[in-house]
This record gives sequence, structure tokens and C-alpha cells, in this order.
Amino acid sequence: MKKLINNPESLVVEMCEGMAYAHPDKLEFKKRHKLMMRKNPAKDKVVLISGGGSGHEPAHAGYVGEGMLDVAVCGDVFASPSTIQVYNAIVDTETDAGTLLIIKNYSGDIMNFEAAAEMAEDDDDIKVAKVYVNDDIAVKDSLYTVGRRGVAGSVYVHKIAGAAAEAGKSLEEVTAVAQKVIDNVKSIGFALTSCTVPAKGTPTFKLEETEIEFGVGIHGEPGVARQAMKSADELAEECVDLLAKDLPFNAGDEVAVMINGFGATPLQELYVFNNSVYRQLAEKGIKVHNTLVGNYMTALDMAGASVTLLKLDDELKAYLAAPVDTVALKGV
Amino acid sequence: MKKLINNPESLVVEMCEGMAYAHPDKLEFKKRHKLMMRKNPAKDKVVLISGGGSGHEPAHAGYVGEGMLDVAVCGDVFASPSTIQVYNAIVDTETDAGTLLIIKNYSGDIMNFEAAAEMAEDDDDIKVAKVYVNDDIAVKDSLYTVGRRGVAGSVYVHKIAGAAAEAGKSLEEVTAVAQKVIDNVKSIGFALTSCTVPAKGTPTFKLEETEIEFGVGIHGEPGVARQAMKSADELAEECVDLLAKDLPFNAGDEVAVMINGFGATPLQELYVFNNSVYRQLAEKGIKVHNTLVGNYMTALDMAGASVTLLKLDDELKAYLAAPVDTVALKGV
Repeated sequence: MKKLINNPESLVVEMCEGMAYAHPDKLEFKKRHKLMMRKNPAKDKVVLISGGGSGHEPAHAGYVGEGMLDVAVCGDVFASPSTIQVYNAIVDTETDAGTLLIIKNYSGDIMNFEAAAEMAEDDDDIKVAKVYVNDDIAVKDSLYTVGRRGVAGSVYVHKIAGAAAEAGKSLEEVTAVAQKVIDNVKSIGFALTSCTVPAKGTPTFKLEETEIEFGVGIHGEPGVARQAMKSADELAEECVDLLAKDLPFNAGDEVAVMINGFGATPLQELYVFNNSVYRQLAEKGIKVHNTLVGNYMTALDMAGASVTLLKLDDELKAYLAAPVDTVALKGV
Repeated sequence: MKKLINNPESLVVEMCEGMAYAHPDKLEFKKRHKLMMRKNPAKDKVVLISGGGSGHEPAHAGYVGEGMLDVAVCGDVFASPSTIQVYNAIVDTETDAGTLLIIKNYSGDIMNFEAAAEMAEDDDDIKVAKVYVNDDIAVKDSLYTVGRRGVAGSVYVHKIAGAAAEAGKSLEEVTAVAQKVIDNVKSIGFALTSCTVPAKGTPTFKLEETEIEFGVGIHGEPGVARQAMKSADELAEECVDLLAKDLPFNAGDEVAVMINGFGATPLQELYVFNNSVYRQLAEKGIKVHNTLVGNYMTALDMAGASVTLLKLDDELKAYLAAPVDTVALKGV
């Protein structure tokens, strides 16, 4: 394992400190419970909290700031944050407007976020709502989930719920629009290489030079099938076909598209892939309203990419276009 | 070679089209001469043109837009754009205020940008100024250069000259501030893996699992030394020591810091490395005014990173903080 780190034990704290040093105007890192907090949060709005295992950078700390999250709770690499961490995030940021937890649909996250919500509601009388992101269409159940996994679609949930919260909407309204995003966002991805978890030191899975893992999860979980390596055009066709069928997305729909790199894929390839995806969508008459291309929800040093489609209506478009100023997303 | 592309021949055009599709509000791609143009440029300001070989994404097309470049001229992978490409960029964007070419110090780029400038001056009476970025302190001469190589420091030249141009400064003034950045910006990098040039299909160099190439260039050129893999702290110490001595940077100086990934390095590691660099600078009494962490000047799929330091004064700080709205840089 060749990684630019000091050691696996201190990695998450060092990473978070490195991030806070880089963005002192936006972020404050509370080391004790590994909370990346928004600097100078608005005091009278619904609080948005997300988080999960580390290793998905810039998620989730990169989405803390104006127009998105108030706190990212940082677990160890690919491990859910503890109940106590999440509980402290809720209590530390309490407002009268209440708190929405945006949880990716993994069993560990659900257990710990829900237990924390219960403690905060019972002991501290804080109103806590929850939504569960499950945009990955690859597999129904998986290694760490009952139901579908939550992946890059989370970014749109943060963005749009964040804009609604910033606009002064109530907890019920913010929760409803977050759920609307979840109901309309779908993703699928593939890996060209495995990731290597620092504490383990060896690749999670092995791919031959001619193989990809199609439908891979963001922790290197198995996907739908081990396939022969394909061209960008072929992969785009396969991804868009599966996504379009799932919701379904139909001719005339307007969508936001995210071409997400898993961590080790150069921007060059992501833009080539966006070109392929764009042309596939055009063939189906699906109109691209907005595109993000980059590393938004990664899996450590995995090479590969995912495609996320979000079906838009006027409400979602307006929230998507609302101001945002975070480390990883500035303007959309 | 496992890359998310269709084929090496069409890669640069597909990538540029994929980029223009993703950012139709900011970019327009002119396919014939592979020019990535700013959509709706200001008409009465100094025009800024840069470019070079592709493979360094988001450089340079990602820096086209308000407050930075007007055109990026896109060569093939790791190959200078032709004289005709650069000439067309100059002629297509002519204003009365004149044109500044920001050239990275590689022999091929210099030859073609200078020949294009001469044609535009002689045949079209366009005022063209030139600056040469040579921030890489690793080696004096190299495979493709006489003198030092131009690397990630280019981003600061684009940013600051772009802000000066946007502020309505004259060609002489914009050129002077670009040169001031060049005189005050230094970089050094190291590779954990080689890159693979698509048309070649095999790694440019070979590193053992325990080795790094210290002082590597952004085309995988040899650096100063093949070294044993080190910790983030050790690499930060080595980089900062060399950079501090070179200009020199002294206690009390205020600097902008860029922690640049070479394309396959996850953000997680770049933030850990920023933490290490930040602490090294603090030990030397060098004050960090501003930090960028991310993939700004890459070398295809090379893993590794570089550190860039820019010594700031009030003028540079003001231009650095000026509004910018490009694909790869929004606000600094």
C-alpha cells in the first residue's frame, strides 16, 4: 500500500484538520467527536446533519457550509460514526426549527443515527426528522444494506434540502423536499480498480487488467457483474439504459446529471465519459438541465465512475440554482 | 491500460466536448483548432490565453471564464498545441487592449506560442505580450526544457493576471503582475505511481511499491531522486524545506499554498498532506493566507502531489481575492 498518509489510526483526524486549515472561513473541526461544523451557521433555520464513514471525500465535510449541511459527522474509514458522535452533532447545533438527519441507507449508519435521534428527542426535546438516501440501482440488498445503497445522489439531497433550509422552510417542508429528491434520484457505477482501506493495506478486491466491476458500491462492495472492460460509449449506454428504465426517466424529462469519479479517475476521463453520457441522454430525448463532473462521492483510491440522474421539476430546479458556498460545491 | 475513454485519437476532442456540454454557460469549444473559449467574454479588456498539452485537467480549459483566461489552447496529450492553433486563438479574441500569452516553460510550447505571437503581430497588428511560468524548483534543465519547468504555479498566474485584466488594467500592467507572480511562486512534487499516456498504453516509468519519484514533472519526467516511500509528514518537511530555501520564503512571509493532486490521488490524502504542510510552514513562521487543495494541474492518472507556495503582498492578495467563476476555480 502506497498512500500519502502518516498512519491509518490518525488519518481521519489529520484529514479533517488539514481540511479545516485549508478553509478556516467555512469550517470548524471539533476533534473530540469528529464533527466538521459550519463556521457561523444561521441560527434560525432547520439544521442539516449528514455524515458516515470517511473515505468518500469530499463527502461529507466538503458539503458543510452556506446552502448545504451544518455538520458532517466523520466516522472512521468506511465505518459509521458512533451514536455519541451523531448525538453530539445534534445537541451542539440545536435550533428551534429542528434538525434533519440525511442518512445513507447502510445498516450501521441507520442504527447509529436513529439511536442518536431518539436520545436527542427524549432527553433534550429536540425535533429530529430523518431521510434515507438509497439511489444506487445496482443491487437490491447488499453487504451492508437492506434495500438499496445510498451513494452520490446524497449530494443533491444535501444541496436541495440545504437550499430549502436556508430559505427558512419548516422542518416538515425541508424533509418533504429532501424526500422528493430521494424519490427522483438514481445512480449506477463501475470500478476499474479496487480501493485499498488504509488499516487493511491490501486491495478490497482484485480486478484483472481487462475487467471492471459493474454496479460496484462506494466501499468496493460487489456489484452486478464482473465484466470485460468497455469503451466510455459502451459504459455510458449501459448505465443510461439501466437508469432510464428504473425511475423511469422518459423523453422530455429534464435532469441534473452527475458524473462522479471514485477517487483515482482523472478529470480527463470523467469529461470523456460525460460526453458519452450526454449523447446517450440526447438519444433518449432526456434534457440535461445541469451537470456536475468531478469527485463528489469517492471510494478512497478506487478508479471508476458513477452516473447519477435527478429528475427535475420547477421546485427542484430553483433549489438547485440557489446560492451555495461549500468546499466542494460552489454554485451549481 | 485501463482507461475510461473510447480511443486515444479522439480523446482530446471528446474530453473538450464533454466539458463544454457540462458547462454551456461558461465555455464554448471550437473544435477546428481545439480552442476552449470563454462564453461572453468582456470586449474591452486584455485577453489572456494559455494552454499546452492535454493531460493536465482541469488545466487549462477549467480556468477559462470570468476572472481568469479567455482561451485555453488544447494540444494533444502531453504535446504542445501547434502554432496555427495558438495563432487562431489570438486572432479570434482580438481586442484593442492587447493579448497576454501565459506560457509554461517547455521548449515546444515556447516555440509554438512565440511563432504564433509573431504572426499575429506582423500580419494582424495585434499587440501580444508573453510571460513564461517556471515554478518547478526540482531540476534546472529537464527533458523538455531549458531552465525550470512550469507546473501548478500557472494557476496563480492565470488567477491574478485574470483579475488584473478584469479590473481594466493595461497590457503592460497585466504582464507586470503576471511576472510578479512568476517571480514569487515555487513548486515541488513527487509521484507515487507513473502516469500512462493513452496513445502509448504503458506506464511512462516504473516505481516499486516502496518507491517514489521525488521532484517529478507533470509529464512523468524524472525528478531529483528515486526515494524510499515516506510519510506525509516527512514528505511535507522535505518539500517545504526545499521551497523555503529557494526563493527564499522567510518567517513573517504570507503565502498562498496549493496542495495539488496529480490526478489519481484521493482528496483524503491531499488533506492529510495539507495538514502536514501547514504544520511545517507554521514551524518556520510562514503564515498561510490562502489554501487550495485539489486536482489543479495533473499528469493524467499519476498518483502523487505537489506543493506550491506563492509569496503574497497586498496587490497579489487583492487580485487573489477578486471574483472568479470558472469550472475549476470559483472563489479563492
